[in-house]
Amino acid sequence: MKKTLGSQNCLYPMPTTIVGAKVNGKPNYITIAWLGTLNADTVFIASNSSHYTNEGIKALKTFSINIPSEDMVKKVDYIGMVSGKNVDKSKLFTAFYGKLKNAPMIEECMVNMECEVTQILNMDTHEIFVARIVETYCNEEYLTNWNVDLAKLRPLLFSMYDTGYWQLGNRVATAWNVGREFKIEE
Amino acid sequence: MKKTLGSQNCLYPMPTTIVGAKVNGKPNYITIAWLGTLNADTVFIASNSSHYTNEGIKALKTFSINIPSEDMVKKVDYIGMVSGKNVDKSKLFTAFYGKLKNAPMIEECMVNMECEVTQILNMDTHEIFVARIVETYCNEEYLTNWNVDLAKLRPLLFSMYDTGYWQLGNRVATAWNVGREFKIEE
Repeated sequence: MKKTLGSQNCLYPMPTTIVGAKVNGKPNYITIAWLGTLNADTVFIASNSSHYTNEGIKALKTFSINIPSEDMVKKVDYIGMVSGKNVDKSKLFTAFYGKLKNAPMIEECMVNMECEVTQILNMDTHEIFVARIVETYCNEEYLTNWNVDLAKLRPLLFSMYDTGYWQLGNRVATAWNVGREFKIEE
Repeated sequence: MKKTLGSQNCLYPMPTTIVGAKVNGKPNYITIAWLGTLNADTVFIASNSSHYTNEGIKALKTFSINIPSEDMVKKVDYIGMVSGKNVDKSKLFTAFYGKLKNAPMIEECMVNMECEVTQILNMDTHEIFVARIVETYCNEEYLTNWNVDLAKLRPLLFSMYDTGYWQLGNRVATAWNVGREFKIEE
């Protein structure tokens, strides 16, 4: 039987990311899982308007999205618990820079997206930073046929239901393919 | 060593959803994994402008987001392979309706969000339907302490890297909590 839960967001689990931005001249990092794909080269992050990171993104119009692996869970969570207003998070990672010069990317994360802000939307509590992906980086040993290998990456998934981090499981099937078996069964 | 991959979206895996909308008087369903959270009660889906579903969403300003479980993978993929322009998908599921009257929700999916469109953005290839979640439904047996139980739900995760569907794995840690252990280790 269906129960009503009120207005509850059920888009979980989501990939847990660390967003990097220069704020007041120093790299700063924040954990973000409210994000999404708008089209092939455009994504967004939603960050509470009170966040320290937002100042830097608005000033320099650049940020990075970094994908941490499962074994970084304590650090990932710590970054989401303390604000750059009170704690200098610049030394927590080795930063590297790419085309945009001002988007600090995390060496220790195996996948990094360098992003240029194209639009800022205000959503009451959150600022939405819409951004074009300018360049993507991945450590060579995490690529299989020039694609990021999820089984090697072991990304950390976030669920608000239980405020939990979850592992990725096994691959089930191939998209735009396994559906052919459904037609046959009909 | 870091390799550059060009502009590549790495926000994967994402939850695989089935979006329901009434088009030309009949329920229609489409598989969507380009979506995200904008704030607590607002989400969006990105749907290619050529999709049949888009007509219905624009006409009635409502849609549903339904979360299929792992065992529905063949049907989920099939729905993403065929267009409502050519195939009548209205009979593939048992539809139920809620507050908005015109957003067909899927009985067979254990979690359903009833959504009201508040804004439409054009992103070249895709239309972005920003929507307020009006009501959320979950089958009673998939709730634990009135929260959706991910371990029971077994959602299907989508990755564009390998055009694959993946399982959810185990719970790793509690967010806003495990980070305390990082501070102690420093």
